[in-house]
Amino acid sequence: MPRRSFDDANLMRLISRRRSSSHSDSLTDTAPPHRNRAFSIRSGGSNKGSSSGGGGGGSKMGGFSLNSLRGSVQPELSKKLFRLIKSENNLINAHEAAGRERISIATQLSEWGEQTGDDAISDVSDKVGVILSEIGEQEDSYAHAIDDSRGYLKAIRNTEKSVQPSRDGKAKIADEIQRLKLKEPESAKLVVLEQELVRAEAENLVAEAQLTNITRQKLKEAYEAEFAATIERAEKQIILAKHGRRLLQLLDDTPVVPGDAKPVYHHASQARQVLNDAEDDLRDWQPEADHYTAESTGAAVTTTTEEETNKAPELNVEEGVTEKATAA
Amino acid sequence: MPRRSFDDANLMRLISRRRSSSHSDSLTDTAPPHRNRAFSIRSGGSNKGSSSGGGGGGSKMGGFSLNSLRGSVQPELSKKLFRLIKSENNLINAHEAAGRERISIATQLSEWGEQTGDDAISDVSDKVGVILSEIGEQEDSYAHAIDDSRGYLKAIRNTEKSVQPSRDGKAKIADEIQRLKLKEPESAKLVVLEQELVRAEAENLVAEAQLTNITRQKLKEAYEAEFAATIERAEKQIILAKHGRRLLQLLDDTPVVPGDAKPVYHHASQARQVLNDAEDDLRDWQPEADHYTAESTGAAVTTTTEEETNKAPELNVEEGVTEKATAA
Repeated sequence: MPRRSFDDANLMRLISRRRSSSHSDSLTDTAPPHRNRAFSIRSGGSNKGSSSGGGGGGSKMGGFSLNSLRGSVQPELSKKLFRLIKSENNLINAHEAAGRERISIATQLSEWGEQTGDDAISDVSDKVGVILSEIGEQEDSYAHAIDDSRGYLKAIRNTEKSVQPSRDGKAKIADEIQRLKLKEPESAKLVVLEQELVRAEAENLVAEAQLTNITRQKLKEAYEAEFAATIERAEKQIILAKHGRRLLQLLDDTPVVPGDAKPVYHHASQARQVLNDAEDDLRDWQPEADHYTAESTGAAVTTTTEEETNKAPELNVEEGVTEKATAA
Repeated sequence: MPRRSFDDANLMRLISRRRSSSHSDSLTDTAPPHRNRAFSIRSGGSNKGSSSGGGGGGSKMGGFSLNSLRGSVQPELSKKLFRLIKSENNLINAHEAAGRERISIATQLSEWGEQTGDDAISDVSDKVGVILSEIGEQEDSYAHAIDDSRGYLKAIRNTEKSVQPSRDGKAKIADEIQRLKLKEPESAKLVVLEQELVRAEAENLVAEAQLTNITRQKLKEAYEAEFAATIERAEKQIILAKHGRRLLQLLDDTPVVPGDAKPVYHHASQARQVLNDAEDDLRDWQPEADHYTAESTGAAVTTTTEEETNKAPELNVEEGVTEKATAA
């Protein structure tokens, strides 16, 4: 996908093309074009009054309004994305908290198990604790990955912010021309203003094209990154949970009769092997790249494995759960 | 696994068996037996001073102490699990918050996309929003599943709590016998106390067996439920993320030249099909039961699919993201 530069030749072409359009047209350039919403699942259509997201300070989005564009800290154009990026921060915090609590629970489970004085429970709870702790680490990595994907959304927001003055400038000149035409139709200032408008339109055309390009590219990148992170966390936690189940199988829950000794626990080395297996499986984990075409359906998906080695974080079986939590 | 009832015959057998053991032995019954910790990964061994989990009110667990058993709101025996169950609540809250934020972000993304006035972005962001919203719903279901698994831990804690008075009662009588033997070795009260001790020991033997049985059974059930929930969330979120990637493929990010019209968006029906596919895949999802034996390693795992139908929550493609968030 080659990126074309917006050189002077392009601009000259644009300016001459725009000359043929009427000024009243240029005023409505920023209004959304007609669109087919028959297949949209968005409720309320363009009826924004029923929206509940964000819960911001009563901003009215009803059409293009000069009033609502000026004087706000965030330009109207980037307000929604500004709030969305803030919400992503809450999401990141929630996943970080989940990871932290999971690791704390892992330590507590291990210590509780030791205190029971039951060899089998002590060993299994300790090693299930290691698995849970690593599940918590994956939750934390997921939070960081969402944080990275936020960067792409910020790039869109920054472009939105920088395009706003261009729209404002163009609209302001067009506004002035309209007023002057009514008050002083023969004013010499009109010619100068119309020249200014052409320049502003050219500048804005470039800005709008940049906005479209950045928005599409970065939106794809942001959510490709987030979906990839979702899949990575999911696949790694599946590995861990399945080995966790193996550990639970080592715990004999056949009831003991009062006064009988607890059966001797023989599975310590097997339990350790489960952790080794989990560590190996995590290290061998590779991201799968799904090469969907736009035409493919769920049934006709081709999946290939990327060859690049992707180092998974190691399961530190040498150090204890407690140690990990202390260091955190 | 048949559950044997602790009937009178059993008790009589126990009592006669315990008669042959000395009273000084019975005092150390509650001390943990010797255990092999060579394969344990728990740091610090029995050195509990270095533990960091829970951060409770400085409870000392160094051996059996009558002082530490009385006067606390939670008996010492169930304190650790009591705290662990509280931490699980924090974990549940964190995952609930993550689900809530995810659904809010989904709505915001959809509304932001509509406002861009770019048909392609509007449609793709709306439908990616549906996917994200469902990922959030899965996060919420996960939180509820952890809540369910907490119930098993509570059963252990309740048994721990009920066993504590039995241990205390036995220890108190043994203590009294020791004191009386030193002060009045010929006291007639000694015979009565020794009879009481035998009864207390019998009662405690049953209680300890119940504790062992409940602890092993419920510990397995608690974490089998939690690992199953981890796998379910992971597999369903993988389905959603992969279909989310398909949606992103429908967004053409080839740069546009300033002044050129945006390419007409032709993928609305395909995007809708992706959501239908995601809905179908979620509905068809089945839990896989891994039948590991205690001897199996990661390489020799047999996996079978359970036949029972497990209804997945439906992706409501008919209603919008906004509507969902409003109802929540």
